[in-house]
Amino acid sequence: MRSPILFLVLSSALSAPVAADALRDAATETFKPLPSTIPALKENTVTPEKIALGKALFFDPRLSASGVFSCYSCHNLTTGGDDNMETSVGHGWQKGPRNAPTALNAVLNEAQFWDGRADDLAAQAKGPVQAGVEMANTPDNVVATLKSLPDYVTWFGASFPEAADPVSFDNMAKAIEAFEATLLTPAPFDAYLNGDDNALTAEAKAGLQLFMDKGCSSCHSGVNVGGHGYYPFGLIEKPGSEVLPEGDKGRFAVTETADDEYVFRAAPLRNIALTAPYFHSGKVWDLSVAVEIMAESQLGEELKPEETAQIVAFLDSLTGTMPEVTLPVLPAETAGTPRPTTMVE
Amino acid sequence: MRSPILFLVLSSALSAPVAADALRDAATETFKPLPSTIPALKENTVTPEKIALGKALFFDPRLSASGVFSCYSCHNLTTGGDDNMETSVGHGWQKGPRNAPTALNAVLNEAQFWDGRADDLAAQAKGPVQAGVEMANTPDNVVATLKSLPDYVTWFGASFPEAADPVSFDNMAKAIEAFEATLLTPAPFDAYLNGDDNALTAEAKAGLQLFMDKGCSSCHSGVNVGGHGYYPFGLIEKPGSEVLPEGDKGRFAVTETADDEYVFRAAPLRNIALTAPYFHSGKVWDLSVAVEIMAESQLGEELKPEETAQIVAFLDSLTGTMPEVTLPVLPAETAGTPRPTTMVE
Repeated sequence: MRSPILFLVLSSALSAPVAADALRDAATETFKPLPSTIPALKENTVTPEKIALGKALFFDPRLSASGVFSCYSCHNLTTGGDDNMETSVGHGWQKGPRNAPTALNAVLNEAQFWDGRADDLAAQAKGPVQAGVEMANTPDNVVATLKSLPDYVTWFGASFPEAADPVSFDNMAKAIEAFEATLLTPAPFDAYLNGDDNALTAEAKAGLQLFMDKGCSSCHSGVNVGGHGYYPFGLIEKPGSEVLPEGDKGRFAVTETADDEYVFRAAPLRNIALTAPYFHSGKVWDLSVAVEIMAESQLGEELKPEETAQIVAFLDSLTGTMPEVTLPVLPAETAGTPRPTTMVE
Repeated sequence: MRSPILFLVLSSALSAPVAADALRDAATETFKPLPSTIPALKENTVTPEKIALGKALFFDPRLSASGVFSCYSCHNLTTGGDDNMETSVGHGWQKGPRNAPTALNAVLNEAQFWDGRADDLAAQAKGPVQAGVEMANTPDNVVATLKSLPDYVTWFGASFPEAADPVSFDNMAKAIEAFEATLLTPAPFDAYLNGDDNALTAEAKAGLQLFMDKGCSSCHSGVNVGGHGYYPFGLIEKPGSEVLPEGDKGRFAVTETADDEYVFRAAPLRNIALTAPYFHSGKVWDLSVAVEIMAESQLGEELKPEETAQIVAFLDSLTGTMPEVTLPVLPAETAGTPRPTTMVE
C-alpha cells in the first residue's frame, strides 16, 4: 500500500520543476537578466580612466552654478539612485517638474527622462547641468571650471586620448555616461531568470505570473522591466489630477503630436521598492497603491489585495545589490576656478 | 690636496641632519603627528557597528526636514570635508552665517564650531540638524524617521547594546562622532614629524621654520595645527569688514564677555589648501592672501612674497591622504517614514 503514495510524492516532486520552468520560460521570453559586464555604449568606448573621470564628475558639485548640487544630489547612490522626493529641489530652492528617476541600471533604458527626450545617458547628463531649476550652469562655465583644475585636464586627456581638445561639455557627458554604465544592480529576479529556482519566494513567483497574465509586462518588459516604449498614462481610465497633473502633457512636449498627450515612457521597475514616491508626479508613496493605480488606469483591472501583495513581492525581487562606490577625491579649486553663485536670476 | 675637500663634504653631509633635527625637534615640541589609530572619544566607545551606523547617518539626507541635505552636503568628503562655499546653502536656500569647517580630523579639535560652542563632535552633530538655516529638523522628527526604518533600529541596537531605547537623538550624534573619528588624513608633515626628512621640500621646511619663528604657531599648534584656543581676529590690526563682518562677534555670543568680541577658535590648518574659501566669513579664496592677512592682523608682520610662498608650501604639506569611504546603502522609506517637507516656515 505504500507504493502509490510514494508514486504521488515523486510525481509532484517531478512536476514542480516543470511548472517552474514554464514560468521561467515565459519570463525569459518577456524579460532579460542583467548582463554581467558593462554594456557597450554608442560612440563611447568605456575605459577605466573614463569611468574614474565620470565618477569624479558625477560627484562634483562644481558642475552646478551654485556649487550646491552634483549629479549625486538627485541621483543619490545611497538611496536607490534617486532622491526620494516628489520632485527634486534645485537652484534657488526651485522644485523640478518631475520625479527624479534612478540612475541605477539607467544605461539599459532605451531612452532617458520620463518623456524619452534624450537618446542616451550622455545626452541626458547635459540636461540637468543646464536646467535653470536644477544645476543652472552653462557649458562654457562648466568647461572653464574643469580647465581650471589641472587634475581634470589630465584625467580628460587620459580618457579621450585622441581628442584635440579633450576637456569639453560633450566629453564631460560621455565620461558620466561611462561611470553610470557601471551602476548595475543584479537582483534575485536575475538569479531566477538565470536558473535559480530558490531566488524567488512562492509569493514572488505568483506575482511574476500575475504581472505577465494581467498585462503589466506588455509595457514593463525587457532587461529593465520597462524603460522602453511610450504609453498614455490612463490608457483605460485616467487617474486623478493629483497623480496626473493636467499641466504636464508628457511626450507631447517632445513630439507635438496630439496622440502623445499624457504619454510617458513606461517606467523601468528595477529597484522600484527603493525609489518611492512614484510616477512622474511623485505623488504616490506606497508601492501597493501605485500597483493598484496602474492596474486600474492601464489595464482596467481591480486587483484583489492578495494579488497586489503578490505583484509587490515580485517587484521586491527586482531590488538588487548596490554597486560598491568609493568616493572620488576631487581636485581643489585654483585661482582660475569660477566662483559659485547662489544668486537666482 | 683631496682630503680637506672630502672633509668639507662629509662635514656638510653630517651637519645637514643636525640642522634638520633641530627643526624637527622644535616642530615636535609645537606640533604632534596624527595618531595611527582612531582617537578615544569621551563617553563614546567606538565599535565597527557604531562607525557603520554613523556613516549611514552622515550620508542620510532624511536627517534634514526637506530630505535635501545630509551632513555630507556641507562636509563633502570628496572636496576636503567642506563645501567650498563662502557660507553654506541650507533649508529654503538660506545662507548660513559662517563658513563650513572641514569634518576631516575634526575629532582632534579641542572644541567644535568657529566659536567653540560645542565640546565635541557629538554635541556638534546636533547643531546643524536643528538649525533653521541648515537642516531645519527636530529631534522628534529625526527619531521618528529613524524608528520608521527597521534597518536603523537594528543598527542602533547593535551600536548601543546596553541602551534601553537605542534609537535616540543623542545616540545619532554619538554614532556620527564615531564615524567622523575615522576621518583622519595623514600628511607629508606627519611623515616629517615621524622622522622622514624627505617628506618635506626645502621650501616647505623653510616655511615651517618661518611659521614658528614669526609666531603663527603660537595659536596654530598641536596635532591639528590649530583647533584649540581662542583669539581675537585682528589682535594687532583689524582686517576690513568684508573679511571680518561687524555683525558676527564670534565667541562673544557664547560667553557674553566683552573680551570675547570678535574672538574665534584658531582654525585647524590640516588640509587647508583644499578648503578655500577662508576665514569664518569665507571671503578670501587665495591661501597666500589668507596667510598675508593673518600675518598682518595677528602678528603685525608684512611678509615678503617669498616668505608667503614658503609658508604656503608648508601648509601644502598638511594636505593628507583622504580616507577611503565607500558609500553606505541606506534603508528605504516605509509607510511610517515622515515625508520630506520643502516648505520654509
